[in-house]
Amino acid sequence: VVRVMGVDPGLTRCGWGVVDGLPGRRVRLVDVGVVRTDPDLPLAQRLLQVADGLTAVLRECLPDSVAVERVFARNDVSTIMGTAQASGIAMMLAAQHGLPVDSHTPSEVKAAVTGNGRADKAQVTLMVTRILGLAEAPRPADAADGLALAICHLWRGGPSAAHDQTLHPHHPVGALTGTAGAPTAAQTAWARAAAAARAQPKEWRVPVR
Amino acid sequence: VVRVMGVDPGLTRCGWGVVDGLPGRRVRLVDVGVVRTDPDLPLAQRLLQVADGLTAVLRECLPDSVAVERVFARNDVSTIMGTAQASGIAMMLAAQHGLPVDSHTPSEVKAAVTGNGRADKAQVTLMVTRILGLAEAPRPADAADGLALAICHLWRGGPSAAHDQTLHPHHPVGALTGTAGAPTAAQTAWARAAAAARAQPKEWRVPVR
Repeated sequence: VVRVMGVDPGLTRCGWGVVDGLPGRRVRLVDVGVVRTDPDLPLAQRLLQVADGLTAVLRECLPDSVAVERVFARNDVSTIMGTAQASGIAMMLAAQHGLPVDSHTPSEVKAAVTGNGRADKAQVTLMVTRILGLAEAPRPADAADGLALAICHLWRGGPSAAHDQTLHPHHPVGALTGTAGAPTAAQTAWARAAAAARAQPKEWRVPVR
Repeated sequence: VVRVMGVDPGLTRCGWGVVDGLPGRRVRLVDVGVVRTDPDLPLAQRLLQVADGLTAVLRECLPDSVAVERVFARNDVSTIMGTAQASGIAMMLAAQHGLPVDSHTPSEVKAAVTGNGRADKAQVTLMVTRILGLAEAPRPADAADGLALAICHLWRGGPSAAHDQTLHPHHPVGALTGTAGAPTAAQTAWARAAAAARAQPKEWRVPVR
């Protein structure tokens, strides 16, 4: 089993999700939530709240690796700085805990979980819910995005998954990772997840913090 | 005495400077340096190096407050993300150590130490060297910028200086802080620093790390 923590960085809501990758491409939810910060507090205090929240998850869930959504300098200048700062803190904390860190772009994440790099938030949430066989969709969307990051990371593989394989040679990581970005992985996953969603009991509630 | 740590955030070179504010607007150098990171390392490792370096300074120099240069989403998109991430880590660490944090814009810093908001790097370094009565200019420029941040913070006052005053009522912070951004403060400082530079011995070397 490889345990991955995904982080959708943000200052107001920082989404995170932890999943276990099982042999044969199955994925299981470990925990999911959102670190919220108080907009009335000074920026430094809010960044500390993000750091404290993510540190608590790292210590409680003990992931093997961390995936953080890549932040681009784009349109929304008003929020980009806080997002970049939160992402930097997430990456630094992962390194501080000795974990490999990778970044994935929003379109990589969308393509990995829905098969479409331009899927909307509702489609991502729907597929995350199905892939993990959850009784209800994780809310808010930031929490689902954290899970999508973690699932994308498991399925895309990449340098850190290879790193995990080196660290944990008894774990068949290779069985979990397909060719990077291969579109058929998502399609296979969809079919498998749809079947799993039908087969599994639905009483489980997602504990969004 | 109020001790201020200034941080010029950066990923390749993160400049920092610590100064003591003395009654009557005099400023004394405590320590100055640069946290350098290895460009060949993964981003998360580099951010951890920045965090470890700044944490060491916080623990060794024990500042009363921290001033971080404000990062804008501007022209140089290639480096802005690393700079924003480093600034977020600096602010978060200061909050983690229970210290008040303020940001100042580059033009505020330039105006505070040179009297001209559009001064170039050489002018800022020259004035920092004179204000602190140093035998030679702190190098690289990022180290001088860290000191300029700290000096700016002392002289501009603002919320955190007021906060310091509350925390340390026995320290006459009011005597150190002028009207925010008043241009005459820098002019007074220039005259005082020029006199101090002439009066002081020159054997002291700046320990840039």
